[in-house]
Amino acid sequence: MIRILTLLVALCFDAPAAAERIVATGDLGVVIERATGSVLIIDQSEMATVARVEGFGDLSHASVVFSPDQRFAYVFGRDGGLTKLDLTTQSIANRVIQSGNAIGGAISDDGRLVAVSNYDPGGVRIFDADTLELVADLPTEAKTIGLVDAPGRKFVFSTWDTGETWIADLSAELPQVTRIENVGINPYDALITGDGRRYIVGLFGEDGLTAFDLWADEIKPTRILENYGKGDEALPVYKMPHLEGWALAGDRFVLPAVGHHEVLWIDAQSLEEVGRTKTHGQPIFAVARPDGRHVWVNYAHPDNDTVEVIDTLSGEVIRTLKPGPAVLHMEFTPRGHRLWLSVRDGNRIEIYDTGTFEKLGEIPADTPSGIFFTARAHKSGL
Amino acid sequence: MIRILTLLVALCFDAPAAAERIVATGDLGVVIERATGSVLIIDQSEMATVARVEGFGDLSHASVVFSPDQRFAYVFGRDGGLTKLDLTTQSIANRVIQSGNAIGGAISDDGRLVAVSNYDPGGVRIFDADTLELVADLPTEAKTIGLVDAPGRKFVFSTWDTGETWIADLSAELPQVTRIENVGINPYDALITGDGRRYIVGLFGEDGLTAFDLWADEIKPTRILENYGKGDEALPVYKMPHLEGWALAGDRFVLPAVGHHEVLWIDAQSLEEVGRTKTHGQPIFAVARPDGRHVWVNYAHPDNDTVEVIDTLSGEVIRTLKPGPAVLHMEFTPRGHRLWLSVRDGNRIEIYDTGTFEKLGEIPADTPSGIFFTARAHKSGL
Repeated sequence: MIRILTLLVALCFDAPAAAERIVATGDLGVVIERATGSVLIIDQSEMATVARVEGFGDLSHASVVFSPDQRFAYVFGRDGGLTKLDLTTQSIANRVIQSGNAIGGAISDDGRLVAVSNYDPGGVRIFDADTLELVADLPTEAKTIGLVDAPGRKFVFSTWDTGETWIADLSAELPQVTRIENVGINPYDALITGDGRRYIVGLFGEDGLTAFDLWADEIKPTRILENYGKGDEALPVYKMPHLEGWALAGDRFVLPAVGHHEVLWIDAQSLEEVGRTKTHGQPIFAVARPDGRHVWVNYAHPDNDTVEVIDTLSGEVIRTLKPGPAVLHMEFTPRGHRLWLSVRDGNRIEIYDTGTFEKLGEIPADTPSGIFFTARAHKSGL
Repeated sequence: MIRILTLLVALCFDAPAAAERIVATGDLGVVIERATGSVLIIDQSEMATVARVEGFGDLSHASVVFSPDQRFAYVFGRDGGLTKLDLTTQSIANRVIQSGNAIGGAISDDGRLVAVSNYDPGGVRIFDADTLELVADLPTEAKTIGLVDAPGRKFVFSTWDTGETWIADLSAELPQVTRIENVGINPYDALITGDGRRYIVGLFGEDGLTAFDLWADEIKPTRILENYGKGDEALPVYKMPHLEGWALAGDRFVLPAVGHHEVLWIDAQSLEEVGRTKTHGQPIFAVARPDGRHVWVNYAHPDNDTVEVIDTLSGEVIRTLKPGPAVLHMEFTPRGHRLWLSVRDGNRIEIYDTGTFEKLGEIPADTPSGIFFTARAHKSGL
């Protein structure tokens, strides 16, 4: 009897915790703590930390995608670690070391497949999102970059060493790969437009970018923005801009210039340059508020204490903020009423009202870098 | 001892249920059962019903918005009922009868305010999203229609009887209302573009539409598409199309014609007509797949057993489906890989693969009408 009672008591101690475990996941997010290999689970609405979870390995260049139900975050570490974090239990559900050195990943539109881009040994590996078992291995004999998902259970990526773009279609039993050569010298990053139509590759080895129309019957590379790049007379390039930072604002993309104190405005249909705005430093991310009315820009060292806000109608800088040392990343709430940014060397997250530019709060974090909200689960190509 | 044990056993019977209650809400949704005043909670990923919840009153023209954490659905009934449904406990959390006759609602960008559009007594009432307590009452002495949220804690709506558009700014303590007269004769519906910039009003009493640029310093009505409407030689109009159905596909909107077997293609920037596609019937909803590649269209009686899919590049109908009697509503999964549609008189929901057009499954439902997925929480103007 006592044994049964003890068992019952033990069970019952768990009951209140379980009853508390109603976790609606729509306004959660994660913050990468790069130096400590840990992740903060945060609540956007409460502007608070829910939990710190440790054991993610090397997060020095980490990124995150989410399952469609927004229960799980897949954290891609630099050391080849792929870690599945359960936001509802606030614990690691699974973890595999899938390569020696990796650089980001993507999740298929149906949420069933997680793909990882590898430097060592190169190639892309694709895993079952439930079990993290290997589903497909796409060796490239080159470092892969710019891995994105595309509609129809596809992944698109490019190769640094060999200048190729691969389109992998996982909708059938065996992957169908379309391999396109001569994309340009040393692709270093890429993006897919929010509608999944255009894949655009940035080149480290030459000026200009390479664009693909993925809706075309025959998919072929087209060179765009011939003057985009380091050029001859550019300033020293402290850090190549992130192309995922391409922001669609109305009918124009906003693009960080390479090695210049400028952002470029690009017509979204013709992909031609239509204007420039002078900025405080060399831009890293230019991120449009979800309504496209403003673009927030952060900068490379030594100007990385500053954030500027550009009005997309006038193209003018309308606000300058000085959050603190090493602003690495910015994330809008999905409907754009707030912006969260990481101040790495200040060991904090700051939260802003995007209407008044007032600082609403701060959250302590250990060398925070990327901030990722669960609403990303519902967008393509992130 | 026995009493304690009984209590413990009683508690423990709840424990497994509570432990099961980890409900990640990102891929849930609700289906309106219009004849029975009930709502199905569904799971997109599982293609299954999670629960049926009853007691919502008259749902003959119901719509739904979601809290930012995707835990709560706010169901707007025809009888003035505003019901807050908890998706995690699958029960009604709160319910108020806030008017005698209502026609839809909206939730502010910060998720704090829920607004309802009323026919009787007219006007718009705004409620605290937590408590459903009245926060602001905006009497108009007219029926209100076309209520939408806009960035910056704003709501926009129009008046049927008096032809006005009101912009209510709830960002300060007291609502600030901008009231614009002479919008046109009998506004019957309106929409806001996904970026929150343009508010477009459909007119029952005359041809053409009225558009507002909400980003302008001085917000004023502009008449667009002068030939859009019933005209003189049109077919009998069985049902005015839903303007929320305006679909942005690339750089064009797709718009159901009034009283014609056509959809219209509208340049998203100039708002001028750039083409038409002949369709099977009088279109009700023209809904773009999230990537904008295809538009799915359903029709008014007597053609409401049919759905057509239009390719947005060619403008051609590429597929005709016959789901069954009275297809009322269509909803894409947020990344577009599936479409759910309601077949009212077939008492079922059907689910399609949007790549192959294959039917993947069916769910029984009692006279289903609207289908609403929780990903809507993260979009403006729905």
